[in-house]
Amino acid sequence: MDKVVTCMAPVNIATIKYWGKRDEHLILPLNDSVSLTLDCDQMHSQTSVVAGPFVKKDTVMLNGHVMPIETNERLQRCFSLIRKLIKEKKGENCPEAQWNIRVCSENNFPTAAGLASSAAGYACLVYTLANAFDLVTEDLPAIARQGSGSACRSIYGGFVHWKAGKDDLGSDSTAVQIATEAHWPEMRIIILVVNDSHKKTSSTVGMKKSVETSELLQYRVNKCVPERTKDIIEAIINKNFVKFAEITMRDSNQFHAICLDTYPPCVYLNGVSHEIITFIHDYNDAAGHVKVSYTFDAGPNAFLFILEKDLDLFMSELIQVFPSDKSKSKYIRGIKSTNPDQVAPYGFEPKEKDLLKYILVTKLGSGPKCIDNHLIDIDSIKNSD
Amino acid sequence: MDKVVTCMAPVNIATIKYWGKRDEHLILPLNDSVSLTLDCDQMHSQTSVVAGPFVKKDTVMLNGHVMPIETNERLQRCFSLIRKLIKEKKGENCPEAQWNIRVCSENNFPTAAGLASSAAGYACLVYTLANAFDLVTEDLPAIARQGSGSACRSIYGGFVHWKAGKDDLGSDSTAVQIATEAHWPEMRIIILVVNDSHKKTSSTVGMKKSVETSELLQYRVNKCVPERTKDIIEAIINKNFVKFAEITMRDSNQFHAICLDTYPPCVYLNGVSHEIITFIHDYNDAAGHVKVSYTFDAGPNAFLFILEKDLDLFMSELIQVFPSDKSKSKYIRGIKSTNPDQVAPYGFEPKEKDLLKYILVTKLGSGPKCIDNHLIDIDSIKNSD
Repeated sequence: MDKVVTCMAPVNIATIKYWGKRDEHLILPLNDSVSLTLDCDQMHSQTSVVAGPFVKKDTVMLNGHVMPIETNERLQRCFSLIRKLIKEKKGENCPEAQWNIRVCSENNFPTAAGLASSAAGYACLVYTLANAFDLVTEDLPAIARQGSGSACRSIYGGFVHWKAGKDDLGSDSTAVQIATEAHWPEMRIIILVVNDSHKKTSSTVGMKKSVETSELLQYRVNKCVPERTKDIIEAIINKNFVKFAEITMRDSNQFHAICLDTYPPCVYLNGVSHEIITFIHDYNDAAGHVKVSYTFDAGPNAFLFILEKDLDLFMSELIQVFPSDKSKSKYIRGIKSTNPDQVAPYGFEPKEKDLLKYILVTKLGSGPKCIDNHLIDIDSIKNSD
Repeated sequence: MDKVVTCMAPVNIATIKYWGKRDEHLILPLNDSVSLTLDCDQMHSQTSVVAGPFVKKDTVMLNGHVMPIETNERLQRCFSLIRKLIKEKKGENCPEAQWNIRVCSENNFPTAAGLASSAAGYACLVYTLANAFDLVTEDLPAIARQGSGSACRSIYGGFVHWKAGKDDLGSDSTAVQIATEAHWPEMRIIILVVNDSHKKTSSTVGMKKSVETSELLQYRVNKCVPERTKDIIEAIINKNFVKFAEITMRDSNQFHAICLDTYPPCVYLNGVSHEIITFIHDYNDAAGHVKVSYTFDAGPNAFLFILEKDLDLFMSELIQVFPSDKSKSKYIRGIKSTNPDQVAPYGFEPKEKDLLKYILVTKLGSGPKCIDNHLIDIDSIKNSD
């Protein structure tokens, strides 16, 4: 390989939550999930790959730090699945299957902020490797899934459905696109990054404990999720925002209910998260209509969904209710308001300052893509290794 | 009636939670519940009743305030059920059934502190009326239930099982005693009264919303609660503390999970509640054994269960972890420690001061009883009315 291949992959946020594996090793989920892929302009992972006889050993750098591949089962699995595909495609003894691979990856958002960095990261790794080795026609979601479950959803843009599947080997557990980002371009996503100091249970550990101890989880998996998945896909196809928004809120709440039903309980929402939830319901009540909805992953940060036409008015109320001492440009990031001087429409009482770190406004985006901005200098590797 | 009748009734705390009615009017629950009756020495309602031709109209005083009976369906129902029983027993035209009734009631603990005041209050009202009108052999739990559901459990001491029943008219929905307080005299209950300013959804409104919107509730009712009820009754009978404690914690968590699965969600636990939950699990982990368990009603206050032998050591750690600027006698109330100078055994980090208002230590107690300390002066009524 004479050149570096570099790609960019998006973050996705689930509206029907993935929580619980039916196979820990193959990363097969207990239930379907549905997600929206966010625009790479605001948040993305970027990965450069180079491979060849001149690379002395497999290495992965993440955000400037060397990752220990030997102890990272997920990284190893992605590497070996890619090498298996290379052999299937180019022959058991092809030289490419023997090459070592150098990976350099960066996120343009805080890794530990609970903003789905591993999904974007593994999607980007797999997509970049596939491009480097000419494997883009393969089932990439199924490989990305084995790095980090929800990564399979970041392989596509727009609206994505990860089907749990039934096969014990996972042959039918993969992601499909429901609709592209162009289907519903009015959709906006507002991320409220919450100040939080608590150590949380990782989602890998949390969902394992839920599978082992939550009596309610099986009912969610068997009864609630199948109905909701069908309903939200219908709502997406019909661009029915109210239905989409309600199912999203209910499923976020149910996911956190399952976490609480876990023994000992896993608690990911904090007081600020609950203040956001109450605010969203109050706002919709005041508007007389569901204008905005929330979802929370395994952390306190809120992801809000709203249509473009309602964004400015809502943002005015939001920054009134959650004030900050930061400058507006530091506090509100991402897509700029076209009409920023609206007055807060309902005049809710402001809460104490700086409950939020910052607010990021973004929209739907496409799947991963190749770019020219490389993180690896091939010449220095050829010279140094 | 020539004399005032005065009774005292206890608070009870559920270990299998009552949440959801199958009949709003008759107050019939969707599921069985199990509770412990607390000692009247620490917490009780006290009620005096007088009735006779000299009482001009039905009146109810609660903690010094006149209650509007006309708009209080629950009070009306208790009065009319008692009058129905009087007629059944003494004849349709007996004078007693025509008498007006004066009630004066007081709690020796804050009514609004989320400490099950309505359960003790209605149990006390019904028990006192039954004593005043010679009806103590009747099914008093079924009448108390129609004042406030969980009041039926305060009619008995020790361990109590409220059977949901199946009859549409509620004939089989009543409380029975599992065991008296003498069966497990080592049981101690520690109440942690949490500082909280939030307005909460009342339990009546909250459970109605859960029945209407929580998909998980039906599964809890049909599958989880029947098994847990059977198991915890067995644990109580066998005095198996570890099993009792675990089921109690799991059911508290599941009840709050159902509240979160409600739409919009009902949130009763606050950050301090969650800190208590984490502390209890950490303490048990450090002890290598389940020494103490928690349960939370529709509010942030914790009710802890522990055996007498483990109380002193636990209390030492508890007040180290939840320190207070109050004097010890104001901060720790109720049953005094016999050996108070233990050192906190595990040396957990103290949290910020005054997360708790106060700590009340109590034990199991008996059901309602008649006392001589009247809240009504019969002579002044005869003279004034």
